[in-house]
Amino acid sequence: MKNKKEIFAGIIIIGNEILSGRTQDTNTSTLSIWLNSLGIKVQEVRTIPDIEKTIINTVNELRKKYDYIFTTGGIGPTHDDITASSISKAFNLSYGPHKEAMGILEKYYKPGEFNEGRQKMAYMPTEANLILNPTSGAPGFNVENVFCLPGVPSILKSMLGEITNKLIGGDPILSHTINLRTVESEIASSLSDVQKDNKEVEIGSYPFFRAGKLGVAIVLRCSKKNKIDKCNLEILQFVKEKNIEIVERD
Amino acid sequence: MKNKKEIFAGIIIIGNEILSGRTQDTNTSTLSIWLNSLGIKVQEVRTIPDIEKTIINTVNELRKKYDYIFTTGGIGPTHDDITASSISKAFNLSYGPHKEAMGILEKYYKPGEFNEGRQKMAYMPTEANLILNPTSGAPGFNVENVFCLPGVPSILKSMLGEITNKLIGGDPILSHTINLRTVESEIASSLSDVQKDNKEVEIGSYPFFRAGKLGVAIVLRCSKKNKIDKCNLEILQFVKEKNIEIVERD
Repeated sequence: MKNKKEIFAGIIIIGNEILSGRTQDTNTSTLSIWLNSLGIKVQEVRTIPDIEKTIINTVNELRKKYDYIFTTGGIGPTHDDITASSISKAFNLSYGPHKEAMGILEKYYKPGEFNEGRQKMAYMPTEANLILNPTSGAPGFNVENVFCLPGVPSILKSMLGEITNKLIGGDPILSHTINLRTVESEIASSLSDVQKDNKEVEIGSYPFFRAGKLGVAIVLRCSKKNKIDKCNLEILQFVKEKNIEIVERD
Repeated sequence: MKNKKEIFAGIIIIGNEILSGRTQDTNTSTLSIWLNSLGIKVQEVRTIPDIEKTIINTVNELRKKYDYIFTTGGIGPTHDDITASSISKAFNLSYGPHKEAMGILEKYYKPGEFNEGRQKMAYMPTEANLILNPTSGAPGFNVENVFCLPGVPSILKSMLGEITNKLIGGDPILSHTINLRTVESEIASSLSDVQKDNKEVEIGSYPFFRAGKLGVAIVLRCSKKNKIDKCNLEILQFVKEKNIEIVERD
């Protein structure tokens, strides 16, 4: 059941280079951490190829399902950059040179350098809102609840600040981690009991290997600090009873 | 249109820790590179939370859409590990202790250490085929075209060898990369012409920043070497005409 104060987002990673394994996606975690800090929970990520029909269908399915959608990739100047035209089709909007974007890029490049390829970066739904790009000029854009960002991680990061004020977040999701020198199977049953007693807290259990030693990170997530505190105390209690060591981990 | 020799896969990454941004997924690229080498093309990745209904629906949607599905995560001993029970429901199969898996784990642990949490790792569709785990005992499993693997990257990697023989691949997808000291907008138009002339080759263009310098990696992908060679020659020709430097990059 959706809590009134819960705001959900979906992420669409567009690009054959991620699906082929050539490029490791890092934009998902950048976007998720940023959205979390605004009280927006990422509920689904889809990584899809540069195929127009797939982009249109995925955007149209997810934009109805979640409060906000973020796409990454496919807004550059080359033939495989088809996000802007696909989004235009998804929304049934005219695709063409965006006046404001053309103006920005004309100023950004030296006279004579604003060639055909660069002009393509100003082609998008003509009525879209721009997302300014302080790194490399070419803006992203926003139509309704869909925000289209570039795939290059450093450029994407530099554009998030401007979007922050456009989003309405929910209660920020707080998180607390307890790192234990144990293995999951030693604590599974006790942890399950704590979860049953603390339904509002999402308790995750993640094994780790570090410096040749096994451990488990218990992650508590909830928008209410008092609920996390209660859950934390219950975990610390069974940890003490079982004589499990608590370890530091950065 | 699907070529007879094209085999497609989908990947389902299961886990709140990826969606929260806490953990950076690396299994997608591991699986994609391995599948590529077998001539299997990853066509879609979905990252979804540890929610039973979402897992069931996603598995049932994608297993009909692609030749193979790989899931990662959610097969450990704790309460948030619900992949095995969800897959049982997706296939309408009975969920319970898997005889062979119980035998493996009984041998793996010292007498008296095969506790309730560890036994849970042998719970899965009782008729599933096991995927042996040379790293940490607890096996993954396979039902029809769905292969369920753990989320811990090192353990996942160690289990791929065994699956290789179970998969029927297509023609391996070859790839060739040309790294240029240029920016995308300088080559966009020429590259687009080459793409039009070489429809069977997937040409990707990926800007990079390295040691303070800009560059573009052109990636050619196709199952036929002669098609890649032809496409490569056409690119090298316009690169020469434009006086663009070719750079080495590891």
